[in-house]
Amino acid sequence: MIISTKKGTPQAELDRIIDSFEKQGLSVTLIRGTDYNVFGLVGDTTKIAEKDVLANPWVENVTRVSAPYKRANRLFHPEDTIIDVNGTKIGGQSPIAVMAGPCSVEGEEHMIKMAKLVKAGGANFLRGGAYKPRTSPYSFQGLGTEGILDLVKAREATGLPIVSELMDEAHIDEFEEYVDVVQIGARNMQNFQLLKAVGKMHKPVLLKRGLANTIEEWIMSAEYIMAGGNENVILCERGIRTFERATRNTLDLSAVPVVKEKTHLPIIVDPSHATGDYKYVESMAIAAVAAGADGLEIEVHDNPQCAWSDGAQCLKPDKFAETIAMCRKVAAAIGREM
Amino acid sequence: MIISTKKGTPQAELDRIIDSFEKQGLSVTLIRGTDYNVFGLVGDTTKIAEKDVLANPWVENVTRVSAPYKRANRLFHPEDTIIDVNGTKIGGQSPIAVMAGPCSVEGEEHMIKMAKLVKAGGANFLRGGAYKPRTSPYSFQGLGTEGILDLVKAREATGLPIVSELMDEAHIDEFEEYVDVVQIGARNMQNFQLLKAVGKMHKPVLLKRGLANTIEEWIMSAEYIMAGGNENVILCERGIRTFERATRNTLDLSAVPVVKEKTHLPIIVDPSHATGDYKYVESMAIAAVAAGADGLEIEVHDNPQCAWSDGAQCLKPDKFAETIAMCRKVAAAIGREM
Amino acid sequence: MIISTKKGTPQAELDRIIDSFEKQGLSVTLIRGTDYNVFGLVGDTTKIAEKDVLANPWVENVTRVSAPYKRANRLFHPEDTIIDVNGTKIGGQSPIAVMAGPCSVEGEEHMIKMAKLVKAGGANFLRGGAYKPRTSPYSFQGLGTEGILDLVKAREATGLPIVSELMDEAHIDEFEEYVDVVQIGARNMQNFQLLKAVGKMHKPVLLKRGLANTIEEWIMSAEYIMAGGNENVILCERGIRTFERATRNTLDLSAVPVVKEKTHLPIIVDPSHATGDYKYVESMAIAAVAAGADGLEIEVHDNPQCAWSDGAQCLKPDKFAETIAMCRKVAAAIGREM
Amino acid sequence: MIISTKKGTPQAELDRIIDSFEKQGLSVTLIRGTDYNVFGLVGDTTKIAEKDVLANPWVENVTRVSAPYKRANRLFHPEDTIIDVNGTKIGGQSPIAVMAGPCSVEGEEHMIKMAKLVKAGGANFLRGGAYKPRTSPYSFQGLGTEGILDLVKAREATGLPIVSELMDEAHIDEFEEYVDVVQIGARNMQNFQLLKAVGKMHKPVLLKRGLANTIEEWIMSAEYIMAGGNENVILCERGIRTFERATRNTLDLSAVPVVKEKTHLPIIVDPSHATGDYKYVESMAIAAVAAGADGLEIEVHDNPQCAWSDGAQCLKPDKFAETIAMCRKVAAAIGREM
Repeated sequence: MIISTKKGTPQAELDRIIDSFEKQGLSVTLIRGTDYNVFGLVGDTTKIAEKDVLANPWVENVTRVSAPYKRANRLFHPEDTIIDVNGTKIGGQSPIAVMAGPCSVEGEEHMIKMAKLVKAGGANFLRGGAYKPRTSPYSFQGLGTEGILDLVKAREATGLPIVSELMDEAHIDEFEEYVDVVQIGARNMQNFQLLKAVGKMHKPVLLKRGLANTIEEWIMSAEYIMAGGNENVILCERGIRTFERATRNTLDLSAVPVVKEKTHLPIIVDPSHATGDYKYVESMAIAAVAAGADGLEIEVHDNPQCAWSDGAQCLKPDKFAETIAMCRKVAAAIGREM
Repeated sequence: MIISTKKGTPQAELDRIIDSFEKQGLSVTLIRGTDYNVFGLVGDTTKIAEKDVLANPWVENVTRVSAPYKRANRLFHPEDTIIDVNGTKIGGQSPIAVMAGPCSVEGEEHMIKMAKLVKAGGANFLRGGAYKPRTSPYSFQGLGTEGILDLVKAREATGLPIVSELMDEAHIDEFEEYVDVVQIGARNMQNFQLLKAVGKMHKPVLLKRGLANTIEEWIMSAEYIMAGGNENVILCERGIRTFERATRNTLDLSAVPVVKEKTHLPIIVDPSHATGDYKYVESMAIAAVAAGADGLEIEVHDNPQCAWSDGAQCLKPDKFAETIAMCRKVAAAIGREM
Repeated sequence: MIISTKKGTPQAELDRIIDSFEKQGLSVTLIRGTDYNVFGLVGDTTKIAEKDVLANPWVENVTRVSAPYKRANRLFHPEDTIIDVNGTKIGGQSPIAVMAGPCSVEGEEHMIKMAKLVKAGGANFLRGGAYKPRTSPYSFQGLGTEGILDLVKAREATGLPIVSELMDEAHIDEFEEYVDVVQIGARNMQNFQLLKAVGKMHKPVLLKRGLANTIEEWIMSAEYIMAGGNENVILCERGIRTFERATRNTLDLSAVPVVKEKTHLPIIVDPSHATGDYKYVESMAIAAVAAGADGLEIEVHDNPQCAWSDGAQCLKPDKFAETIAMCRKVAAAIGREM
Repeated sequence: MIISTKKGTPQAELDRIIDSFEKQGLSVTLIRGTDYNVFGLVGDTTKIAEKDVLANPWVENVTRVSAPYKRANRLFHPEDTIIDVNGTKIGGQSPIAVMAGPCSVEGEEHMIKMAKLVKAGGANFLRGGAYKPRTSPYSFQGLGTEGILDLVKAREATGLPIVSELMDEAHIDEFEEYVDVVQIGARNMQNFQLLKAVGKMHKPVLLKRGLANTIEEWIMSAEYIMAGGNENVILCERGIRTFERATRNTLDLSAVPVVKEKTHLPIIVDPSHATGDYKYVESMAIAAVAAGADGLEIEVHDNPQCAWSDGAQCLKPDKFAETIAMCRKVAAAIGREM
């Protein structure tokens, strides 16, 4: 950590600063500049918050040299983490995962039908929302437990492991019992209470990036889960909020190489939520594979106009199958299985 | 709601669309254009999601004419909502509220000391965090229940009503019993589970704007709380995330007149979190009063360098008193009490 | 165009509005709603500015149904535009173009060397900046005319057509004489004076997207050039400014399918400026090809640490060749030549 | 400047780095850390570009401690710059300036009428656009020279100095002869060619902040003008582009205290372009004064619905007079004249 202090900072204050950091076990070097003095701190600075150092009015700015995360940091864990979900692996050189299904669970019969369709189209995971975060209190909020049980039936019918979003600590037992991958939605990426709770679960967690969260904050949220004991975190890029309105969000595909450089965790991409428009899902799915993503999460519905939520971004089953077929060709071109 | 469909949409499809909306009790007018056909829907469209309409591939775009919220909408509730907290009022032409105190509760003695200092400086509410949302799992996470009880002692010592952040449904009983204003933090603005829960509480809710949330989404989150039965919602602008880095967030003061136009709810401003830097808090507090805010929330600490969190944005008690004195002059200039 | 007016707008005002639009040759339909009245305008509304309509205090909001551009609009020009540069074609099903070279021209000898290296690595256009837009007045500002002449020598040596940035109307004759593709930089995307000037040139224009410009504004800037008579516009996505700092800008790859849907113009991608970091250029170049881009613009330097500008985002020649080789495999996978 | 290099950087490379900076006259200190080595450079680093240092693959990141600007830097020029325009002063403790008038010049008679109206309402500068930057090539582009001459007539009639936007180097002589304050618009803030040109003018420059430019980039653009010899630069905050759509842009009022801390230049605020909506102009004008702005720029039109451009954000003359009267009360409350 590098701290610069204003011109004219009294010697007594410089001494006090050095002393306070040395007491925390850090080694401190002072560089005297023309207009600023600069301190370099060596040692474990993950517990020092920049904002607290800035409270000192003599301090001009603070820069972190080391990343504020440890468990997720590739520096201390160079090999890729590979996550095993009922025998299907994600990460490293594992085949690219395909999670697909409707936005919302819409009943047992429909869920089983959709599971069969997405499996036929190339999915190796089934997604479906039983608890739905909706902007409006007047929108459909999900089937709840009934929806989870419908997913279980669909897993029985197809063998596909199931991915579903957890919104409430109160449902942790239910998810621990029935769900294979616990999704934390973008709007809950910094719901630290929930992160702590899933950190104690025994199921892999799919952590979506928040709409306005930096990659560093996203990795810090993974760190929360890992610090709780659950090291099986899959990151999911799903678009960030920008000024552009032609797409619902802006898919940040460069997050794929950045995350792979900074961490050892797998990263997948959700082109459905990123674009919000079925017309752009195919090209972004293919691009995500080309960028090096470890998996895709895609919304599929047999009748998007009647979907209970988010129909505008759903692919129909035949278009989905076509998209995955094209993704496989691109995966082969870059030397990955799918 | 206005829906435009592509050139060449078959008549049967136009008929089907008209029919489906008429079945929902809406009256539909079709305008045939050169390149598009446009439908106007008249009636209550709050239950129709734009995204679902867009699932129809013949649909080009959808525009909402009426706001998607009702209870919070000034159109249906023209008079200002005035919220009464233990006799102190917020909103309408009530005196401008001043909520102040340290970021984190740091023990009973310190809390009482700070309560006396902020009261002397002009505060009529005491703020303090007992449960802290922190980006890093390695940072101090708050004193919890002990912190809430320290706030209660400070209230006893000064008479100031207390404001504190709720992060977890599990603490609702505790907040219902001890806290006067329940704060929902920016990172939980779309934690719909928590919004539903506070919608059933009997205490006013201070709803902070999310880092990347539009004013409309923010009002929709207020609507969630109101739809649950709790109409006492105070909105709090605390800066949004932009590309600028000279300040931690960008204070969106124009949200004040926008919120006052669209809703009847009171709106306050938090210049401490918005700027993240004590040097800019005073001018932004004064500007917020000038812009028409119904209150301020300001972080104050007697020794910011030793604050347990967020010291960089805390005012010292004397600077706080000076800031409030200047705010009062500006309030008087625009004809408001403070 | 759809215009909604407030509840209570007097009939005389509604009549006046209808009359004013009918005088402009538009056909007007009025839909009376519960809380709003809505007008639908049919006809050519490209000359009506939303902002002017909003000046009427009875107007609540205005929505454009048709796009505000015509010449660039795919609706009126369904076939892809294919641009011919000295026999090399860009757009449609033409082979994917590769524009490469150093950020700045650094002298004749170096330019010829670089031209040979990028040609060997797979480039079919040579890029190099002779006039450089630099954030600091104290940075190197480009070799000027000398740099243009160095590019000409490199073209003679390799046959590669040359692409260079125009910053000033004063250099138009020079560019008309020597340069093959005239680049307009991101910071000048809304320098309307310059757009008008290149609209009268006889050379294709490469129009970079502005840092904070929507896709619609970008197409409108292409429309400026086309309205001047120069229909040969190539769009170039080069990243937009967001809150994320791990990359210099955020590459918006979804702009590729959006631009292809809305316009008939070719679109290329510049992963060098988008990411600002050589480590991420390869994966984003491959992803751009996968997304359907008609070309790439990549910065290459034989000694990035000594580059006169932007070394951090330059690929070395061997890495460039490797990147293009991988891009070709992906192009083949999706059925495109490169 | 602080440079951190990766773990494992060879000693020879560290020596090479030290040597290369020492050759540029800088003094270099090396701090060896656990995971990184850090260099501190002391001396004038304004000519070193971060991006060039980052081209070295051993370098992890680079932090500037000193600001990259000198002439605009308050550190080297502690007193406020006060700019004298025909005897009217802006900056320091001068009375708060009020620049007002229509968006576009609409003819001599109208211009004189508007000049008298804004003068009566409290303006001490007259603004009006003769050359207009318009997003669409089909919109009115300004009266040109005729508009400049209309402004001159209005100045003769009222004595108000005139402010108008320069878009093209070709008009510099005209502006030097007729205009009192030369405005550089937001879209040209990084048109470095134009900045260099106005740097040689003898008239004060009003430099608007770009839609997506940081405060540091904005100050760097002022530095461009100052480096050319023209030290009379007034900065103008006019809203930045964010995800929010309730206002056209987001007014960043915290830029006022930030600019005053970092530079000695005057800063004014344009609430008209910032909000894009006349309903929010008054409260933002008052807030700007409260925040410490040295002036306001406000669009005023006697018949906004018929304004030739930007009617939606114009105040009518009586509302303008009322707004300025309220601003004066607030100015008095904070101890400033207006």
